[in-house]
Amino acid sequence: MKIKPLSDRVVIEPSEAEEVTQGGIILPDTAKEKPLMGKVTAVGEGKMLKNGETAEMSVKVGDLVAFGRFAGTDFKVDGKEYKIMHESDILGVIE
Amino acid sequence: MKIKPLSDRVVIEPSEAEEVTQGGIILPDTAKEKPLMGKVTAVGEGKMLKNGETAEMSVKVGDLVAFGRFAGTDFKVDGKEYKIMHESDILGVIE
Amino acid sequence: MKIKPLSDRVVIEPSEAEEVTQGGIILPDTAKEKPLMGKVTAVGEGKMLKNGETAEMSVKVGDLVAFGRFAGTDFKVDGKEYKIMHESDILGVIE
Amino acid sequence: MKIKPLSDRVVIEPSEAEEVTQGGIILPDTAKEKPLMGKVTAVGEGKMLKNGETAEMSVKVGDLVAFGRFAGTDFKVDGKEYKIMHESDILGVIE
Amino acid sequence: MKIKPLSDRVVIEPSEAEEVTQGGIILPDTAKEKPLMGKVTAVGEGKMLKNGETAEMSVKVGDLVAFGRFAGTDFKVDGKEYKIMHESDILGVIE
Amino acid sequence: MKIKPLSDRVVIEPSEAEEVTQGGIILPDTAKEKPLMGKVTAVGEGKMLKNGETAEMSVKVGDLVAFGRFAGTDFKVDGKEYKIMHESDILGVIE
Amino acid sequence: MKIKPLSDRVVIEPSEAEEVTQGGIILPDTAKEKPLMGKVTAVGEGKMLKNGETAEMSVKVGDLVAFGRFAGTDFKVDGKEYKIMHESDILGVIE
Repeated sequence: MKIKPLSDRVVIEPSEAEEVTQGGIILPDTAKEKPLMGKVTAVGEGKMLKNGETAEMSVKVGDLVAFGRFAGTDFKVDGKEYKIMHESDILGVIE
Repeated sequence: MKIKPLSDRVVIEPSEAEEVTQGGIILPDTAKEKPLMGKVTAVGEGKMLKNGETAEMSVKVGDLVAFGRFAGTDFKVDGKEYKIMHESDILGVIE
Repeated sequence: MKIKPLSDRVVIEPSEAEEVTQGGIILPDTAKEKPLMGKVTAVGEGKMLKNGETAEMSVKVGDLVAFGRFAGTDFKVDGKEYKIMHESDILGVIE
Repeated sequence: MKIKPLSDRVVIEPSEAEEVTQGGIILPDTAKEKPLMGKVTAVGEGKMLKNGETAEMSVKVGDLVAFGRFAGTDFKVDGKEYKIMHESDILGVIE
Repeated sequence: MKIKPLSDRVVIEPSEAEEVTQGGIILPDTAKEKPLMGKVTAVGEGKMLKNGETAEMSVKVGDLVAFGRFAGTDFKVDGKEYKIMHESDILGVIE
Repeated sequence: MKIKPLSDRVVIEPSEAEEVTQGGIILPDTAKEKPLMGKVTAVGEGKMLKNGETAEMSVKVGDLVAFGRFAGTDFKVDGKEYKIMHESDILGVIE
Repeated sequence: MKIKPLSDRVVIEPSEAEEVTQGGIILPDTAKEKPLMGKVTAVGEGKMLKNGETAEMSVKVGDLVAFGRFAGTDFKVDGKEYKIMHESDILGVIE
């Protein structure tokens, strides 16, 4: 069971704030506007454009992404914390 | 008797905040920005686009959806509480 | 004598806040953001779109509609209270 | 001598707030958001649309219109008070 | 020497606030939101539309115009006070 | 070495606030919303329009321009103070 | 390992605030709205236009750029501080 995000939203499973990735990215918990990161677990179908067409999403399931500390809304599935946010709140994909 | 929502609005019958779904989603009542969920009972015809056409709705009657705590307006039909909100306030569909 | 609303505005004769409709909808007066309802007595010709065309109205005279407590502007004709508001402030049509 | 309003503005000669029209509309002075009314004495050529064309005005000279208490800007010509406001601030035409 | 305003701006030589025009318009200094007036001494080439074209200006050099008290920016040329403002801040042309 | 401004930005070398130009323009330092002036030393390639094309700039290198006191961002090159601002913050070209 | 910025974002490795470039640009740390500068280390694919196409980026990897003190979000990779910001927050390219 899972949430299928609407529009240009994505579901993200956040990484621990203190986590050090293999490449050595540290996204510390202390500063107020430091980005956090997490893994994309679901993506919406894309934002509707003014002409009624749907814009393609830039991230896909499995991407490790960085986002701002206050981006999105928290929710729990099976005891795990997730975030759901607009793709425009994602700063970038960690490669 | 029921309310037919205008534009891109949907009518939602909210689930109890403490409810644990079969899949185990818990959407607790305590945190200020935790999403809630409920069942869609009516959908509008869709938002009018700038060119005068109508955008298709993404949710349908019967969908179980998640939404933010402060989304929409409350009203009562036959003693039951409902919410009416814009589809853009719906975070995602719970599958 | 009556007011012909401009653009996408509608004139609504509000129902009493305590009124219980045949179907049993109760829209109580107490809560701050509870919707109210009333009967549409006049509709404008529709909002002008960016391309200069006019969007069709979704409500018609005689519709019973729900709206937010702070929607629209009050005025009196022949001692009766009316509201005039944009159609976008109408939450839905009560059927 | 008179003011020719620019864009979608109209010049309105406000009626007395206590005035009772023939049809019996009373627009009292006391409430904070009650509409007022007056006679249109001049209309602009219409708002320019995004494509450079000009939108047709919905009111014409001589129309008796209702508007919100805080709409427009006051000015005096030959000792008479007038208001100049955008057509979008006019709630409706009194027929 | 003079200022050629950019975009849809106009340069206005304000009339004295107490000035009584031939036609008898009085635009007094006391009220907070009363319009003022002045003579247009220079006009820009017009606002650029979304499609890259330029919108025609509605006022021309020599027009006597009315504007709100807080519209525009003051500057001095050769000891004379001028205002520079967007055409959209001009309420109307005094004829 | 210099800064090539992006989009519709321009680089301006501000004139002294007390400076009296040949034509006699005085732009005094005291009033809070008086415009300042300066010489354009670099211009961007123009703002991107919604359709992806680039709008032509209205000012060019060498123009003496007036701007509001709080427009733009200050920076220093070789000890000289410059301002970088959007062209839309420029009030006009002094001729 | 690095961050691939989304949309029109760029990753910038900020220069020391006190740094004096070869050309002599000094961007001091003290003033509240002085621009800073840094080297672009990654660029997004460009902002999506309303018609669904993607706008070309104006900066490229290796560019030395100036930006406002509060632009962007800070993050660390391998102990080095970076900033990620929208291209529209970049004031200009230092040549």
